[in-house]
Amino acid sequence: MAPKAADTLLVNGLVVTMNALGDLIPQGAVAVRGRDIVAVGRSEDVAANWDASEVIDCGGAAILPGLINLHTHAPMSLLRGLADDLRLDVWLFGYMLPVEREFVGPEFCRWGTRLTCAEMIRSGVTCFADMYYYENEVAQAVADVGLRAVCAETVMKLPTPDAESYDESLDFCRSFLEEWRDHPLVTAAIGPHAPETCTHDLLRRSAQLAAEYDAPLLIHVAETAGGAEEALSLYGMSSIEALEQHGVLQARVVAAHCVHVTGRERELMAEYGVGVAYNPTSNLKLASGLADVVGLLDAGVAVSIGTDGQASNNDQDMFEEMRLAALLPKGVTQDPTVVPARQAFAMATTGGAEVLGMAELIGSLEAGKRADIAVLALDRVHNVPHFDLTPENVYSRLVYAAKSQDVRDVMVDGRWMRRDRVLLTIDEAQVVREAQRIGAQVGAFLARREQSVLDKLVALGALQWGETYEVQVKVWVPEQEALVGRLLTCPEVIVIKPSERKQYDTYFFFDDPLAGIIRYREDYLLDRGTEVKPIYNLTLRGPAVEREYSDSVLLSRSRFTATADRSLRFYQEYFQPREEKRVDKVRSRWRIKYKGVDFALNLDRLTRPESDRVYLELKARTWSRHDALQKAEMISEMLDVLAVDKAGLVQDQYVSF
Amino acid sequence: MAPKAADTLLVNGLVVTMNALGDLIPQGAVAVRGRDIVAVGRSEDVAANWDASEVIDCGGAAILPGLINLHTHAPMSLLRGLADDLRLDVWLFGYMLPVEREFVGPEFCRWGTRLTCAEMIRSGVTCFADMYYYENEVAQAVADVGLRAVCAETVMKLPTPDAESYDESLDFCRSFLEEWRDHPLVTAAIGPHAPETCTHDLLRRSAQLAAEYDAPLLIHVAETAGGAEEALSLYGMSSIEALEQHGVLQARVVAAHCVHVTGRERELMAEYGVGVAYNPTSNLKLASGLADVVGLLDAGVAVSIGTDGQASNNDQDMFEEMRLAALLPKGVTQDPTVVPARQAFAMATTGGAEVLGMAELIGSLEAGKRADIAVLALDRVHNVPHFDLTPENVYSRLVYAAKSQDVRDVMVDGRWMRRDRVLLTIDEAQVVREAQRIGAQVGAFLARREQSVLDKLVALGALQWGETYEVQVKVWVPEQEALVGRLLTCPEVIVIKPSERKQYDTYFFFDDPLAGIIRYREDYLLDRGTEVKPIYNLTLRGPAVEREYSDSVLLSRSRFTATADRSLRFYQEYFQPREEKRVDKVRSRWRIKYKGVDFALNLDRLTRPESDRVYLELKARTWSRHDALQKAEMISEMLDVLAVDKAGLVQDQYVSF
Repeated sequence: MAPKAADTLLVNGLVVTMNALGDLIPQGAVAVRGRDIVAVGRSEDVAANWDASEVIDCGGAAILPGLINLHTHAPMSLLRGLADDLRLDVWLFGYMLPVEREFVGPEFCRWGTRLTCAEMIRSGVTCFADMYYYENEVAQAVADVGLRAVCAETVMKLPTPDAESYDESLDFCRSFLEEWRDHPLVTAAIGPHAPETCTHDLLRRSAQLAAEYDAPLLIHVAETAGGAEEALSLYGMSSIEALEQHGVLQARVVAAHCVHVTGRERELMAEYGVGVAYNPTSNLKLASGLADVVGLLDAGVAVSIGTDGQASNNDQDMFEEMRLAALLPKGVTQDPTVVPARQAFAMATTGGAEVLGMAELIGSLEAGKRADIAVLALDRVHNVPHFDLTPENVYSRLVYAAKSQDVRDVMVDGRWMRRDRVLLTIDEAQVVREAQRIGAQVGAFLARREQSVLDKLVALGALQWGETYEVQVKVWVPEQEALVGRLLTCPEVIVIKPSERKQYDTYFFFDDPLAGIIRYREDYLLDRGTEVKPIYNLTLRGPAVEREYSDSVLLSRSRFTATADRSLRFYQEYFQPREEKRVDKVRSRWRIKYKGVDFALNLDRLTRPESDRVYLELKARTWSRHDALQKAEMISEMLDVLAVDKAGLVQDQYVSF
Repeated sequence: MAPKAADTLLVNGLVVTMNALGDLIPQGAVAVRGRDIVAVGRSEDVAANWDASEVIDCGGAAILPGLINLHTHAPMSLLRGLADDLRLDVWLFGYMLPVEREFVGPEFCRWGTRLTCAEMIRSGVTCFADMYYYENEVAQAVADVGLRAVCAETVMKLPTPDAESYDESLDFCRSFLEEWRDHPLVTAAIGPHAPETCTHDLLRRSAQLAAEYDAPLLIHVAETAGGAEEALSLYGMSSIEALEQHGVLQARVVAAHCVHVTGRERELMAEYGVGVAYNPTSNLKLASGLADVVGLLDAGVAVSIGTDGQASNNDQDMFEEMRLAALLPKGVTQDPTVVPARQAFAMATTGGAEVLGMAELIGSLEAGKRADIAVLALDRVHNVPHFDLTPENVYSRLVYAAKSQDVRDVMVDGRWMRRDRVLLTIDEAQVVREAQRIGAQVGAFLARREQSVLDKLVALGALQWGETYEVQVKVWVPEQEALVGRLLTCPEVIVIKPSERKQYDTYFFFDDPLAGIIRYREDYLLDRGTEVKPIYNLTLRGPAVEREYSDSVLLSRSRFTATADRSLRFYQEYFQPREEKRVDKVRSRWRIKYKGVDFALNLDRLTRPESDRVYLELKARTWSRHDALQKAEMISEMLDVLAVDKAGLVQDQYVSF
């Protein structure tokens, strides 16, 4: 029988087929024609039956199915190493979100994805699952390079870098799914960010869209304990239960992380065939928790492996990830026999294909499947000697000792991505150059922000900030009741609203004298003696008093104020002040109108540092020099009505006492 | 001022000094003369002040202090990937110890160490701490290659591959310490294996030897919970307390692992300056436990990083180890801010030097220290873009994204080990060839063993095995009391010892019909109704009945029997039988003499599988065909005395019923 025609033969390698029988073929070969594998077998048999113009010797190497990375955010390569070893909230709200708001656009996504593709190919990855913004750019970059990917456009209830609202995101998703239909390499998908960052409506509509286009649905599930709790409180049930109820589990779901899922959730995942993307490095680095991988596997859930984005990993090395996926569950369960090397390798190949619903096409080396192949040198000093007592010895070599640097050649869909350690479809030097250029822009933005406490404040972003000024006076007063009575009963005064409050202020001081001072205030309205839910706010006061009028009336420092929706601890880590001071006080406050103009009258008694003195403040917001001058004059008039001893006038703030 | 003479200038790199100020010098340089660093500074300054024939451009790269690997067993590279994903006891007693007994000798240690040195240099390691046997061979290989190492000869109470007793080991230690005194690269040391594998006397004498030679003392401490408990029961106190009491803490101690140390032990370690070698990969892979690194650091203990040997890692990649040392404690403490990148890098450099008591010489790049240097490319796709907002960005690049493959050049003691990715002092191809050759011998040994259940049994080794035969008869009997009375009152019979026992037998069956059958027996002596501590034994019965005499008296299968000092679970995993069966019975046994010859008379009632029948057995050990024939005749005579119904004679074993 005459040999048949193939395009490429890979010969003399150890073929790790990952077929159902787990065949390992020493001195094996794989024949490729067009996009497909047409034969797998012993080298001599394949060579006898197939002719090809290209014959690649794989002596000393293994021929593997390409690895599949089930969770990443490809463009985030450009944020690698930007901010590490921080608390999750500081990292996310202080760095990732502000930078993403500022920089994430088509160019960022294109170059970021190219950089990630270069990393992936170098580590033997032939297919990956992505969730990001401007996902059409990600998809185009992947298609240009020639890798295989499932690309999910991220949707959530908050504004994103590419949409003001989720309606806009869903419209974009639809056209994205439409545009990439039937692409040979890219599968368009939808990525509702996480149950807790979506809404009932958004989950339901995402599920409908996935059903309409038969598209995979990628989602973060229970990555952190906090996220799982938020979902619970939002839906009144656990994340996976919420996904079931909103029809999401009808889709081909890839659930990333699943660190904090319950037994019931595991059952549902097994029942509906929800696949998990396990991200051991990211889960450790962000201290998200230790996923119960063994519990998921025992429940019959398909588990695959992901690197997550470079902002939380910090690379796309699936060999490292596979190794950690084998190691970490042993430490967690205290059982060295769990997730043996063979299982970890399966999670990174056949497992990934299964989770993506692409097991018919990829994940193993079998005739009829796509030619997604990696050739891995096994004869390096860090991977000898070789034992071949059982197949486990081979998988041990692949998982515990092989490194991404051992990947010699990579083919995707029958096309070479890398040959003899050279990338063929990416200009590596250009990608590095562009990454450094964009990185420099991001760095400059953050450096400016770091220099200015105000910029750092503004970078928190979701908050609304505005500059305001106040005119104010402060005076020490002896007999309060009578004094205040004199002003409140004055005919020019109308009392709008009296209140009793307790205020706990923490001031942040900075090295830079121009940085100003940040004040974090917990403001408790004392309602019949009980402290009710406080108001938290954050105020930046500029470094200098703007102007002084007669009677020590001051035009105050510029002020930026906003609701403080994060903890004091967050702001401490985020602003990293040189020094902190606490001032606590009890404040009786009257909002009044004097001659029709709004003022506040405060009577303050400091409790920390403790003081017997009572201070009276009169203040008003102001918007212009002219307005400020008028209000300063009115304050002087009121001081006359009060008949305070002007020897008691003070210009210092409480924190400077 | 005229420039001074140096040998080598490394210029234009990012110098990560790791000096006390944590100086990072972009566009920096290091000047080397002889064995020493003579200058560190900005490139232009160093180039202006120093002339050298060799000038190395480090553009795009970092110039680092060489990494220090604080715990390994260098020759074990030759056992890499031999047996993974097994329980610790199966791994150790089933594979490591038998193979070490068979193979560890001078040649093994020489080539194993060379292979390890090649791996270390490739991953930027310039100094390591080793514990193994034939440590003079390890030391010689290190010296030949030109690396720096602390080499500790292992001593323990058990026989080792290089000593029958610990007296012998200690004698060897002394001459080893003597021989390597004042070597420029190798520091000879003593390595009492672990508190629980030593004795009071051995610890004391090790401490004395360390004091006499001012030698470092390397020891495993509390690697596993079991080990820590053993030490507790052996010394009546915890491991570190035992080391204190025996004077060991007076030495420069490197305590490997410390996974299961108590608060009191941490205090003692801080007080005595005991350094810890943290081995995160090995601890995960063997499921030893999750060391409380943060607790150790908080207690003021110096912590360094080790890879452990390749049998439990499976490589010597300090970049992987550094990364995991930064990641794992975050997951364990659920705090992403612990062990930040800078601290992990310090643990692998200055920390290692401090733990070894060599901080004056190595660990940082400073004028006056030894020239132990690694140059690391930072401009690869997996490590861009670069941010330089804070020094932490640099350490993040080194720890979270850099890979061993990025190590371009390595210098030790002023001598190049690697230049432009080529090893200069090791013939890499030869090392790979020799490793494969020795590995093939080990593989063949284990393959033979795996084929034979007997060999596998013998490989357990510490046990004493011997082949024995029995002659025996078995008969079903109706009225037991009267029957037995007839024999025991017979004048030719003397009753030596009656007993009541309960026996739980588990039989292992194998695919190979020639493999025989393994029986694991728990034998409880019933003492006034309570079950006391049982005897455990393990018996291998040959596949065939040797001979049959008249009256169904059999010369039994060959038997190998030994005390079973491990659990049933261990033997199940070790032998991996195709099938198992349980037989439980109550046995009344009389050891008797018949005509002066020893016999056993058993009355057995099966409880699992349950049976109402009672079987009578008569058996005796035998040593020769002649002896067997005589005893078979005596058994026939006794059957006549008993007057049993010969229709009840059975040849099957209980397990075949």
